[in-house]
Amino acid sequence: MSGQPNGQSTPPKVDRSNLIPFSSRLKEGRALALDVWTIFKSLATTLLGSAANLPADCINLGQGYMNFAPPKWVTEAAEDALNLVAPNHYSHPRGRIRLREAIKAFYGPQFHRELDVESEILVTSGANEGQYSVFTAFLEQGDEVIMFEPFFDQYLPSVTFNGGKPVYVPLHPPKDDVHKPTSNDWTVDVDELRRAITPRTKMIIVNTPHNPVGKVFTKSELEAIAAIAEEFNLLVMADEVYDCLVFDGKEHVRIANLPGMWDRTVTVGSAGKSIPHDLSEAFAATGWRVGWLIGPKSIIQPTLAASTRIVFCSNSPLQEAAASGLEQARERQFFEIQRAEYAERRAILADAFDALGMKYTLPEGTYFILLTTPSHPAFWEEGEISGQACCSTIGCISLTDHRACWFIAKEIGVSTIPVSEFYCEEHANIGEAYARFAFCKDVDTLRAAAERLQNLKKYLK
Amino acid sequence: MSGQPNGQSTPPKVDRSNLIPFSSRLKEGRALALDVWTIFKSLATTLLGSAANLPADCINLGQGYMNFAPPKWVTEAAEDALNLVAPNHYSHPRGRIRLREAIKAFYGPQFHRELDVESEILVTSGANEGQYSVFTAFLEQGDEVIMFEPFFDQYLPSVTFNGGKPVYVPLHPPKDDVHKPTSNDWTVDVDELRRAITPRTKMIIVNTPHNPVGKVFTKSELEAIAAIAEEFNLLVMADEVYDCLVFDGKEHVRIANLPGMWDRTVTVGSAGKSIPHDLSEAFAATGWRVGWLIGPKSIIQPTLAASTRIVFCSNSPLQEAAASGLEQARERQFFEIQRAEYAERRAILADAFDALGMKYTLPEGTYFILLTTPSHPAFWEEGEISGQACCSTIGCISLTDHRACWFIAKEIGVSTIPVSEFYCEEHANIGEAYARFAFCKDVDTLRAAAERLQNLKKYLK
Repeated sequence: MSGQPNGQSTPPKVDRSNLIPFSSRLKEGRALALDVWTIFKSLATTLLGSAANLPADCINLGQGYMNFAPPKWVTEAAEDALNLVAPNHYSHPRGRIRLREAIKAFYGPQFHRELDVESEILVTSGANEGQYSVFTAFLEQGDEVIMFEPFFDQYLPSVTFNGGKPVYVPLHPPKDDVHKPTSNDWTVDVDELRRAITPRTKMIIVNTPHNPVGKVFTKSELEAIAAIAEEFNLLVMADEVYDCLVFDGKEHVRIANLPGMWDRTVTVGSAGKSIPHDLSEAFAATGWRVGWLIGPKSIIQPTLAASTRIVFCSNSPLQEAAASGLEQARERQFFEIQRAEYAERRAILADAFDALGMKYTLPEGTYFILLTTPSHPAFWEEGEISGQACCSTIGCISLTDHRACWFIAKEIGVSTIPVSEFYCEEHANIGEAYARFAFCKDVDTLRAAAERLQNLKKYLK
Repeated sequence: MSGQPNGQSTPPKVDRSNLIPFSSRLKEGRALALDVWTIFKSLATTLLGSAANLPADCINLGQGYMNFAPPKWVTEAAEDALNLVAPNHYSHPRGRIRLREAIKAFYGPQFHRELDVESEILVTSGANEGQYSVFTAFLEQGDEVIMFEPFFDQYLPSVTFNGGKPVYVPLHPPKDDVHKPTSNDWTVDVDELRRAITPRTKMIIVNTPHNPVGKVFTKSELEAIAAIAEEFNLLVMADEVYDCLVFDGKEHVRIANLPGMWDRTVTVGSAGKSIPHDLSEAFAATGWRVGWLIGPKSIIQPTLAASTRIVFCSNSPLQEAAASGLEQARERQFFEIQRAEYAERRAILADAFDALGMKYTLPEGTYFILLTTPSHPAFWEEGEISGQACCSTIGCISLTDHRACWFIAKEIGVSTIPVSEFYCEEHANIGEAYARFAFCKDVDTLRAAAERLQNLKKYLK
């Protein structure tokens, strides 16, 4: 039987590394790509608990989480909850009633309606899971979902996992001749949006204030989008998790409040109106995983059916804490104070870029600021890019923004996120002109980062 | 234009109740059905925060959550975490490193291997979300998933939402001539299992100890299942969330430990080895939503990709608390003491049924006990069934177990779960012989329930 000299047969070698093939859905929507959050996280962020690629003393202005704890008056509510029986056990899949009541009281007036806690509010395990559940509840195989580019990167696999097809409509960057652009200089071309509609279009995602651009969509922009949604009977997912983090007297307009739009809009929110993708993030607690959806029964009910099967319910003690936070926020003027604090933080980075003479987009909302990375190669070629980390790992060495972000992290000691990550592959070249800085950090950290950034001067020509 | 007498045209009425149709996936897998947990919950369970159908003073032995709080030494760890910065922010999508290390230390020896915290352990937002993510990661449209009936009801929509097709293989109930059946009298017919395999079979779910039967699969049963999984190259999801809640000296065997099975098995667990579908439930905290998966990199890695997109990560403070719980559990002999406590609780209900002369399945594992509901109609027809609640709502008035559970709740004041809910529609008739009682309640509550149950005597003939 065997041709081997010792007469023993060698058992056939089975490659067990991929014994059971994974689903083809993971091959779409970049689901298996090493995500940029992992690549660019600093070793200093022991938060994340795993080895990372960047120097240990790198100041992390990449991922959007705070380097401060939630307010004491909020965590105390969580502690109270932990010492009781009920708030440690299953929540109703719709969310704990105290939190739904708090959401109703806080947001009802903003939607100009008495929200029904039994059918118009759904608490989710982070805003992310809420959005995912909407896609699960509404998408058929091949349904198209329109998103404005750049887009929050989780949308893409959340759509494709549920059988949907993402369709991209660009936000057009500021024209070159705009000396000091703001996020309002990023524009929507409504005709382009209309041309993107097909008979399979099911949904439009409208993210305002917008991550990563900081754009606060104007009422007339939203009216134009709403008219198209009405005309083609589309569902609108209004991702408004930064709804209260709006600066310079700009008004946050809710598309759900435009005439006729309530019935087709689900609004994704955070109690904080300030902080990303999580109810609890409002209270500087990105790790609590408590988000919510508001909309008509015709949208909330199917989404509840999806969410109940995906996670069953959300964690109870931190829902209690978030409820307590919302209940007290108005009296404590929590969000007004927070907004002023964030305006100050935004100014620290803007001033640093001004001092360098570098171009950036001043955001009218969110806590992100886009730096236009220099377009000449000297900017990165003079640095010590090892070629062994980020770019060689994920094969993106050719993207200007990845190289620039890598350079700024390694040479200057400030980590940021390359904006091409917020574009589909075909359009990544638009994003590679920008690096995203998060200013949801304490003032001392931002000042230290601003000081380090001045070291870029010698590389600018 | 108008034929109306006043000359004014009437605008066409648009039915906006279902403006945007929801996904057809919600029409499968009972996803939109009013779930039995909602129907049978007691008004007394203010836990759940919503109106309910049963009398306010009904003793809830239906849903499997505890009516006691987590141990103080566990909640204190959560409080500590709330007062720090990092444990309030994003967790790594794999889970916080402290918890993954604690899982490795606790479970590694039970799997006879050094578990790799970077590739073989995944913390999920409850065991439910972990299971859902496995289906998302591995199912193609039309892939078949075998589950033993009765089955944990969440499996069904979790499979169909991800394009899979559930295939049912019955556990055969004890023969009529068994005087005092145990869960071991519920049997698997291996030939029947083999006949259920088709070219589209992708996965088998093995739930041991089994909810709701309490069956602890024997080594030889698991070996037979494993041989079939090997022969047909199937993935095995071993739902072992009750792994430490095994009585009467019975041994819990892990199918992942059988020869050749590690590579194709993902084990779903709870730290508690005692309590359902959640790591944290081990510590009497069903509402914490911290579960975990253990398996080879080839299964965990795609599942991580799915989970990262579905929920991004799990809540951080309660992961810290669960880690602390696991770290201290051995020294405190937590699970040994807990097992003894549950054996005592099981005896309270078993004794009550014995005193009534009613037949039941004594469970060798879990905290559920199945009562065989009397087969003669007098049992319920003498009660005051209004016909307006449960059964008329969900159209199941014809099912014996729904009527019996309803009767026991309304007349006797103890709520339970009808076991037909754990069967597919076609086989619901097998389940309707049983009602599920949960004994994860404090001793006083169980004694009170046992006392009330004696009132059944007059209805028994």
